[in-house]
Order: sequence, then C-alpha cells, then structure tokens
Amino acid sequence: MQARPGQGVIIDARSSRALILVGIALAGVLGASVNARAQALKDIQTPDTPLVLKAQGSFFVGGDKVEQTAGELGDLGPGGNITINQMYVRYMVPQGGDRNMPVVMVHGATLTGKSWETTPDGRMGWDEYFVRKGHPVYVPDQVGRGRSGFNQAIFNDVRAGSAQANSLPRWIRFSDEVVWPNFRFGSKPGAPFADAQFPVAAVDELSKQGVPDVTFGGVPTPNPTLKALSDLASQVNGAVLMGHSQSGSFPLAAALLNPAAAKGLVLVEPGGCPPNYTEQQITTLATIPILVVFGDHRDTPTGLPGFPTWQERFEGCQAMIGRLTKAGGQAQMLATPERGMRGNSHMIMQDKNNLQIADLILKWIDERVSKPTRVRK
Amino acid sequence: MQARPGQGVIIDARSSRALILVGIALAGVLGASVNARAQALKDIQTPDTPLVLKAQGSFFVGGDKVEQTAGELGDLGPGGNITINQMYVRYMVPQGGDRNMPVVMVHGATLTGKSWETTPDGRMGWDEYFVRKGHPVYVPDQVGRGRSGFNQAIFNDVRAGSAQANSLPRWIRFSDEVVWPNFRFGSKPGAPFADAQFPVAAVDELSKQGVPDVTFGGVPTPNPTLKALSDLASQVNGAVLMGHSQSGSFPLAAALLNPAAAKGLVLVEPGGCPPNYTEQQITTLATIPILVVFGDHRDTPTGLPGFPTWQERFEGCQAMIGRLTKAGGQAQMLATPERGMRGNSHMIMQDKNNLQIADLILKWIDERVSKPTRVRK
Repeated sequence: MQARPGQGVIIDARSSRALILVGIALAGVLGASVNARAQALKDIQTPDTPLVLKAQGSFFVGGDKVEQTAGELGDLGPGGNITINQMYVRYMVPQGGDRNMPVVMVHGATLTGKSWETTPDGRMGWDEYFVRKGHPVYVPDQVGRGRSGFNQAIFNDVRAGSAQANSLPRWIRFSDEVVWPNFRFGSKPGAPFADAQFPVAAVDELSKQGVPDVTFGGVPTPNPTLKALSDLASQVNGAVLMGHSQSGSFPLAAALLNPAAAKGLVLVEPGGCPPNYTEQQITTLATIPILVVFGDHRDTPTGLPGFPTWQERFEGCQAMIGRLTKAGGQAQMLATPERGMRGNSHMIMQDKNNLQIADLILKWIDERVSKPTRVRK
Repeated sequence: MQARPGQGVIIDARSSRALILVGIALAGVLGASVNARAQALKDIQTPDTPLVLKAQGSFFVGGDKVEQTAGELGDLGPGGNITINQMYVRYMVPQGGDRNMPVVMVHGATLTGKSWETTPDGRMGWDEYFVRKGHPVYVPDQVGRGRSGFNQAIFNDVRAGSAQANSLPRWIRFSDEVVWPNFRFGSKPGAPFADAQFPVAAVDELSKQGVPDVTFGGVPTPNPTLKALSDLASQVNGAVLMGHSQSGSFPLAAALLNPAAAKGLVLVEPGGCPPNYTEQQITTLATIPILVVFGDHRDTPTGLPGFPTWQERFEGCQAMIGRLTKAGGQAQMLATPERGMRGNSHMIMQDKNNLQIADLILKWIDERVSKPTRVRK
C-alpha cells in the first residue's frame, strides 16, 4: 500500500473558491523589518510568581501506518512502514487544576502551536495564562505541520521521476508584506493603525513563526486533525476546543464527530463559519456553548485580490449564530470593539491586551461551560 | 533575491560517503506494530510531586529574510519577504535554578525536540528531569524540521515547472523495520534483545515522532543550526550543549564557533566524531569538558547495507577522545555496559533506565562543568 494524500481542503466551506478564501485568511507569517530584533530571548519577560504544574509533557493522537517504497523514504534503506497523519500535542496541567475544564488550542494556517506560546515581544502566551488560571491546556500542531510532520512520499516520487511535477501539492506561506493588512496590523506594511494592539515592533519575530503549510492538497480529506481533536477531547474526558483562523471552524467539525466530548467551542477570528450546516447539524451544535471572537478594523482590505474582508467573515459567523440561537443554542459573538477595546488584530492572542481578551474567554468558560464530570488521572 | 538552499550536508564528516553513513545512523522513526497503542495519553504517568518553574516558553534564534516570488509562496498573494533558517527553542527554567548551568538538548535525524519529552511509553523525558534536577533546559527543533520550518521555494518552483524535478532535495524517513536493528532494539523487527532497555511495547509511539528530514540538500551549508546553537549558548551566558545521533557532533561544531559559550559538550550516541580536526581545533576543544555516551549491542548490523556499525562509530569517538586527551583535554567516554547497565539502545534518552543514564550525565556536569558566571535574568 502506498500513501498518497487526497486533495485536502478546508472543511465545511461553501465552494472551492470559498475554500481558498477561507484558507487565505487564516493565519500566517509576517515581518516587514520594523525594528528587527536579532535576539528574542533577551526580550522575554519572566513572571513574578512561579508556575506550578501537576504534569507537563507531550504525546500523539491518531496516525496511520502506511507502507512506502525505498525511494519514497529517501533511499536510506529498503521500503517499509512509517506512521503519517499523527497529531503532536504538548500539554500542561496546573497543580490543583485537574478538576477544571481542559482547553485545547489549535493554531491557524502556516503556523504551529507556537502561536499560543510566548508572544513575539516576549510576553506570556495564552497557553501559560490559561494554565495559571487553573485549566489543563493542550496545544497541538495540525497534521501536516510542525512536530506532527507530513507525508513526504509524493515529493520524493517527483524527484525520482516516478510522478509528475504537477501532481505536487503546493506549500503556502504568507509574505511579511501581506500580513500587515490581512492580519490588520495596519492598512499597509510598516504603517500600523494608531490604535494597533499587535506588538508591531516585534513583527519580525512573528515572521519566524511561519512554516510551510501543505493543507491544500497534501493532507487527506477529511483533514485528520478534525478526528484527532475529537479524540483528544474524548481522551481528556471533555474539553473546550479553541480554533484560530484557518482552524477557526475546526471546533465545530470536531464537535459534530463527537458532541459529548466537546464541552465548549471557541472560534477565534475564524476564517469562516460554515453557512451550509443541515438543520440536524445546527440542532446538535445548539447543545454546545459556542463563543466567536473577532477584533477590530475588520473592513481593512486584505491585500489579497479577490478575498473577502474579515468583516464579511464576521457577518458569516453572525448568520451562523443566528441559526444556532433560533435552534435554542447559546452561541454568542465577542467583538472586542463592542467591549470597549480598540485596535485588536487577527493575531489577537499575541496582541498587547491579549490577557484582557483571555479573561473574557475564561469568564465565558466559567459561566457557560459545565464542569468536567470526571477528574483527569 | 531568491532563496535557494545550498547542498546541505552533515558537517565535519570524512567524505561524502561518510556523510551518508553519519546521516543514516542518526535518529529516526520506527514501529513494527508490536502491541500497537491507539491512545498514548492514557499511558502517561503523572509525577508524584509538582514541577515548579520560574519561567517557561519559547522563542527563535537566527533566521534570514529572503524575498520569494508569488509562486514560491504558494500563490496566495504577491511575492514578498519571509523568514527562513530560524531555529525554534522551547525552554523551562526551574524555580531557584537560575544559577545552575543551562542544558541545550538537540534531537537527531527525522526527529524533533519531542525526542527529549515524554517517552513513548509515557515516562518523564530528560527535558523535565534535568529541570527537576535544577537546570534550565532549552529544546530546539533543528532548522528544516518541526516548528523551525524549512524553505519551501524549490518545491513550489518544481510544481510550477520553473525548476527541474531532479533539483529537489530528498526528504528522508526511517522505516519502522529499519529502526529495530539500526537503533538496536533487537537484531530484527519485532525481536527485541532479551535485555532490551527500549520500551518496545510502545514502539509505535516512537514511529509517530518521525518527521520528514530535508537536511541532505534542503538546508544551507553550513547548517544554520550550528550557529544558532552557538548563539543560544551565548544568549544564556553559557550552556552545556547536548546532541544526539545526527546532531551528535553539533556541540563540537558550535563550540568551535564560540568556545567561551560552550561550557560542556555531551555527545549522545553521535553518528560520528570528526576524525579530521586540525591540531588548532583539537587544542580549542581540549579546553572544554566533553562527555560521549554510548549504549549496548553496538556491533549489531544496522540493516542498512554499507553502513558502519555503532561499534565503528564508537571507536571513531574513542580516537577523538584520544587526541583530546593528548592535548590536555578532559574528554571521556561513558559506555553504559562498562557501568553495569545492559541493553541500552540508540534512543537512550527514552530507554526504561533513562533517568539512571541522566543521573550519570548530571553527575558529570556537577563535577566537570563550572558554574555560570552570570545569572539568568
């Protein structure tokens, strides 16, 4: 058996055009050398109080055994089996927090779990902050990126001439220049909004977070990350699933695979809220608390010709919330400008007021999401 | 300017043949479905006492800005700049441990920093253990792998027909079958040595740690990881640099770039110890405490035709230690069978007696490596 990924696409989007639109939004990379910093370590702030963990570590969810040829394995030995499509997860459980609701944080396009860690300018990331607030936190790398790896077979096949070059999936990365308008740091590169919350002086550090993303064509359909998220939520006896940008709708898709394990869904600046759910799917999702989070300057032209603005995406999510509400659900929108905060960007978990936003999400979890029924071992 | 990596090779190896030999040894992946485990999380052990951290987080070292075309960026927008060749680093600093010597742990081929985290069967990894013993620990992903990303330009160029397929670098992964003899779990797949220390029942979890590795041709020469390791050691005011397998000689190379920052070097099952150092280089390395660690069953045929056994690599390191000793150095070999331990594998940091091995390294650091002269902020 030979591994060959299918045509991977963002799930639940309206059409193949929309798929690209959703994809483009997502997450990314950026940079445009404003005050470039050669060394990030010196800028990292040390907290005033220690972090006390019951446990920390990493593990994998999912994965498929496939047999590949010697050539597909890079000719370092005979052909044989490897594992692909596994999802790497790093976790931290706070001391005394094992009765609290676990939170799973999934990154966006061309990024990895690093999104949720130390911010580009050296402040605490949401991963640690949520742990300090008592929640076990699980941070995956999506299948196909980072420590989850990807299926290299087709690339080696093309290299050896046994497959056509045009059968290769494409790798995407966002340029530093595109990130400025698309992530709403400013209307153009190097020109931040007057009220910009993103730490633009450290924008080169965000550029370093970028990795090539083969989601469009190099990951099977449906994306194995969805099942892995659902299984992860089940393994921890229920969790809040949080997605961002390209993975913004992943919590919805994972919840539909196993609604009992998805105790709450947080969609942070989602690339899109699926408009085509059936009434049955809406009925199911209406049983789960859902929070959609959007920042400011949403009508900024993205800098990507033909792509919708974040305001259009926001409106799509408003429409989904409307359907859920009509079905008796408790979905709600958290638009930061309506809460008195200006200038929040697409990378809201890295913005200068990121912990203020986190507090709003934590409050929502406390108020809307039920406590776990079983305790983590 | 267009980014195009050079012909990346393992540094300091004897010849292009030897380069491949060193490469093949390295690290890897494996599996051969013995007692496959679908869910790893349930097998993870929770420590008896909490982990108390002064700080934890992540950052990048190094990185180059390059301009790429729209096609090279995956056609999601116009051409522009991105960052490549950066090195991701995750760190943990123990409460009260900021006066102790930092330890940097670098993984081997086709692997990521995951190597040092929770073991395949759910025990504590060396990253946490060294922190619990008082040391700040820094775990990078090598440039070209994991959260450090790689340069995707050539792959998109070939896809678009603007570069030839045979110009592609190859991606390597080790098959599950090759790992058994090459990592010395047993002489053949599924047949562990009677005294095997590797947790072979969890071998499928090690298979999941594998990621495609483009070090041979897809990473510039010299490998940017070497300078990044040297810079990292400098940024933390001096560190013990630990490499494994393919990166086994990286601590030596990084030390030669900045000897003052490399306070101690630990070569864990190195793919090779360079035989071609000049007398000047040996004189420099003789000023730094060096420990080389090898396990058992070293004369096992690797299962990779034409490749040297680990015993041959061991003997090459003995020869280097001889040169260093003659130059007044304090390099030494830690061969676990000579310390009364049998059955240790190539993945010694994941073996069942991994903490016993760690204790020997910690004792060596205490006895041979001087204390930091400055305290981490």
